[in-house]
Amino acid sequence: MAGSVPAELVALAERLADAARPIARRYFRTAVAVDDKTDASPVTIADREAETAMRALLTEHVPQHGVFGEEHGAVRTDADYVWVLDPIDGTKAFITGLPIFGTLIALLHHGKPVLGIIDQPILGERWLGVAGERSTFNGQPIAVRACADLANAYMYSTAPIMFPGEWEKRHAALTQRVKLFRWGGDCYAYGLLASGHVDLVVENSLKLYDFAALVPVVKGAGGLITDWQGSELDMNSDGSVLAAGDPATHRAASAVLNGDDSGAPEKRRQLG
Amino acid sequence: MAGSVPAELVALAERLADAARPIARRYFRTAVAVDDKTDASPVTIADREAETAMRALLTEHVPQHGVFGEEHGAVRTDADYVWVLDPIDGTKAFITGLPIFGTLIALLHHGKPVLGIIDQPILGERWLGVAGERSTFNGQPIAVRACADLANAYMYSTAPIMFPGEWEKRHAALTQRVKLFRWGGDCYAYGLLASGHVDLVVENSLKLYDFAALVPVVKGAGGLITDWQGSELDMNSDGSVLAAGDPATHRAASAVLNGDDSGAPEKRRQLG
Repeated sequence: MAGSVPAELVALAERLADAARPIARRYFRTAVAVDDKTDASPVTIADREAETAMRALLTEHVPQHGVFGEEHGAVRTDADYVWVLDPIDGTKAFITGLPIFGTLIALLHHGKPVLGIIDQPILGERWLGVAGERSTFNGQPIAVRACADLANAYMYSTAPIMFPGEWEKRHAALTQRVKLFRWGGDCYAYGLLASGHVDLVVENSLKLYDFAALVPVVKGAGGLITDWQGSELDMNSDGSVLAAGDPATHRAASAVLNGDDSGAPEKRRQLG
Repeated sequence: MAGSVPAELVALAERLADAARPIARRYFRTAVAVDDKTDASPVTIADREAETAMRALLTEHVPQHGVFGEEHGAVRTDADYVWVLDPIDGTKAFITGLPIFGTLIALLHHGKPVLGIIDQPILGERWLGVAGERSTFNGQPIAVRACADLANAYMYSTAPIMFPGEWEKRHAALTQRVKLFRWGGDCYAYGLLASGHVDLVVENSLKLYDFAALVPVVKGAGGLITDWQGSELDMNSDGSVLAAGDPATHRAASAVLNGDDSGAPEKRRQLG
């Protein structure tokens, strides 16, 4: 199919994750210096070394491809293929010793995510999604679970800071409709959704390198991942993300987030 | 010393954790039925089976001791020794497949926690604290880290629901003073504090079985753990918990939580 990814690029993506893994492991739970000079977020040595290692592989094997990394910037972003790297997504988790951060590797083709890896270096866990193929967890095929009713949904969001002002109200309205809500997921929550343990992940203020890798993983497990309006995620997205395992949950959550609850499936069912 | 715990009771505590571990592992990331009949929290089969297994060991080896478990209630709580069990602390983490829940095992002597275990069954991680002894992580001695200034502190709290009404304001005032704040820790955050990766854990609305095991782990690593007023935690505590690795951080955090910021160390330093 048109969206398929050459096998050698899938293998290369896995090599990138393999290269980042020992670097993250080496600095995890050590006294990593926190560098506040360049921005306010905790940027670790591990972050930079892991991206450098991954970029070296890309330069060696696919020098014509573009690269956009969280740490070391963008080159050739007008190329057909662009790699998007976030060596340590969940820096707060990483620097406090919580083994649920992730290395995110995405490949865009003409601006659309066609390959994604969520790798947890400490636990040795890897989610892989490729356009047109079944997503895997450590090599085993995975699938989202059914959750037809919002009232039964397990929901994650990473942190309140993602939802300033009006966004906070819209987000809070949804948390009150689900069965279980928990803060603190980062990319790992999307992996859990793809594996059928979580029904909804709702975020905002995400950058391309935060969400690009998640798209093929979630879609290839049978889930939906869009912005809050239901539009596909790409380079021009507004940073809002709504992932769901079940289309009914996705529809109902989108309605609540957009202040229009009348279309929620559970209400329609009651009327019908 | 007076607070020391007989070696055979330490060994028994470890046997309890060993017994709970395979039960938690067996049900983790499987379709566990969520039982809402008895209370609003997600109580899993794993929770009940693990407590049953631990209580069986206590009945066999120390039938004269008291037992207070989250799932199966209290017996002989007027005994000199009372075991306090929370088979799965962090049920939200557990039922969503997040491997940072913990099995909590505490031993009270005359109402005071003298032994504590935080066990993470999936990762095979165990923190052990015994009154008068150095705490360990997987058998290796651990220590909190220094953090003299609140502005450098990494802080955790489990969930906003812990801080209703006025508590929310007091908690929020503290989160704005620290370097890093993250929701979503459960007992695991106290382990990370004892191991020197986190500086502050601030909670509220905790039950005895939530905090009893944490006390010896944190203290034996050189940290402080009290209620928000600075009083020792025991059976009569109000459920507020303030744990810190550094006494200066503990003092400063307590001042902010109690609305008295004038005594905060960083302010005194500026004046001096």
